[in-house]
Amino acid sequence: MANSPSGETVTERLVRILETFDTDRTVQTATEIGRRADLPSSTAHRMVADLVECGLLERDEDQRVRLGMRLWELALRGSRALRLRQAALPFMERVQARVREHTQLAVLENGETLFLERLSHPKAGANITRIAGRLPLHASSSGLVLLAYGPEELRERVLAGPLEAVSPETVTDPARLRRVLAGIRRDGVVVAPGSVEAVSTGVAVPVREAREGVIAALSVVLPRHAPTRPAVEELRAAASGISAAFATQRP
Amino acid sequence: MANSPSGETVTERLVRILETFDTDRTVQTATEIGRRADLPSSTAHRMVADLVECGLLERDEDQRVRLGMRLWELALRGSRALRLRQAALPFMERVQARVREHTQLAVLENGETLFLERLSHPKAGANITRIAGRLPLHASSSGLVLLAYGPEELRERVLAGPLEAVSPETVTDPARLRRVLAGIRRDGVVVAPGSVEAVSTGVAVPVREAREGVIAALSVVLPRHAPTRPAVEELRAAASGISAAFATQRP
Repeated sequence: MANSPSGETVTERLVRILETFDTDRTVQTATEIGRRADLPSSTAHRMVADLVECGLLERDEDQRVRLGMRLWELALRGSRALRLRQAALPFMERVQARVREHTQLAVLENGETLFLERLSHPKAGANITRIAGRLPLHASSSGLVLLAYGPEELRERVLAGPLEAVSPETVTDPARLRRVLAGIRRDGVVVAPGSVEAVSTGVAVPVREAREGVIAALSVVLPRHAPTRPAVEELRAAASGISAAFATQRP
Repeated sequence: MANSPSGETVTERLVRILETFDTDRTVQTATEIGRRADLPSSTAHRMVADLVECGLLERDEDQRVRLGMRLWELALRGSRALRLRQAALPFMERVQARVREHTQLAVLENGETLFLERLSHPKAGANITRIAGRLPLHASSSGLVLLAYGPEELRERVLAGPLEAVSPETVTDPARLRRVLAGIRRDGVVVAPGSVEAVSTGVAVPVREAREGVIAALSVVLPRHAPTRPAVEELRAAASGISAAFATQRP
């Protein structure tokens, strides 16, 4: 692919442009995009025009730019994320109907926890995660499950630190984190009070696939002092259901 | 953006590569991608390597390529599709709990119906739509709503034909289609028996936004001879709820 004078590929620049959009910034001008993506203004305007032409970006009535429905479509229709999420949704709904807080599905993506789906009860407690949002692996119940069952090389890299504290109770001591991870592999579940927010407890279990092992974590976020046993049972039943549904859905 | 010898931009080639993936083809080799995207093999291999490097594509253990979680994340986290779908999901679940068939949310995208979300009851009847799948506007209840309330220029273009029959009962006569669309604007609902499949009836209503008018269609797919009135009432209540939720959610 043609490289720019800075040696970057066009694909890298494209990713930088897409990265300037997020949940809190869904509409921007081409000039703002250029500034945030650290691209020369003329380059940004030309690339934005190309991306609008292809439908990956769209212009609104004020000539500002937002992510295009076409991008959404291309990213989803052949994606493993969509297949996994489709297999999981009926089971997540069942957990959600019983536990009535937050129910989440997360995967390991480039060394972080990426949340694929979240169902929330209107009256549920606090929860900072978002769909398509990320958290460090050691900082949430979902991430701890993904880290416990993830590649050993990744686990050692995370354990080597630094282990940032997302809340005062995030496990940041490597020796203690190692014990937590061993406990998850032994018990097949983690209960993590306060690791993301002081007011809540995360409970997560692994979702397995025959060939690849653990492919996702299914979790609920409960109020800090709620009983966790019923949630663990619901999550285990749901995770088995998701595994079976994902297996039969494979092309 | 740098153009190829054929005058195409890199962005256009990138879209062509992403287009080779779909629900039935989630994993391919770089050679297959090149053939399907009509790109020289060396170009395809170089672009696929760049895309893997950026995480937009991923290689599996057999060196085959699939859409990357990073692409999914970038496409979703700042997207209007996700915001709309998040506003809609609780109301769709309520419709689904009562109607117990298929509940769908669709938008107008480049002259076609694009389905953003679908909830299905395990025992629900036939339904050919898929999330991130498309249908011609005149061929489903959702599309008829989007066409009825869409830009006049688009409506005239569709009415000018050709109007392809998706099923034997798809409305393909322009004069009749014009009457159907006027009826939708008058009644705020469409009941379309057999227009996609002979065994089912689609029922759809518009979802409105204060500034932009109709932004989506909410629909259920019922067995052909099921009563439609309860579904119409559920859909109308849900569409109002979605409009209100989407409005308060705006950044």
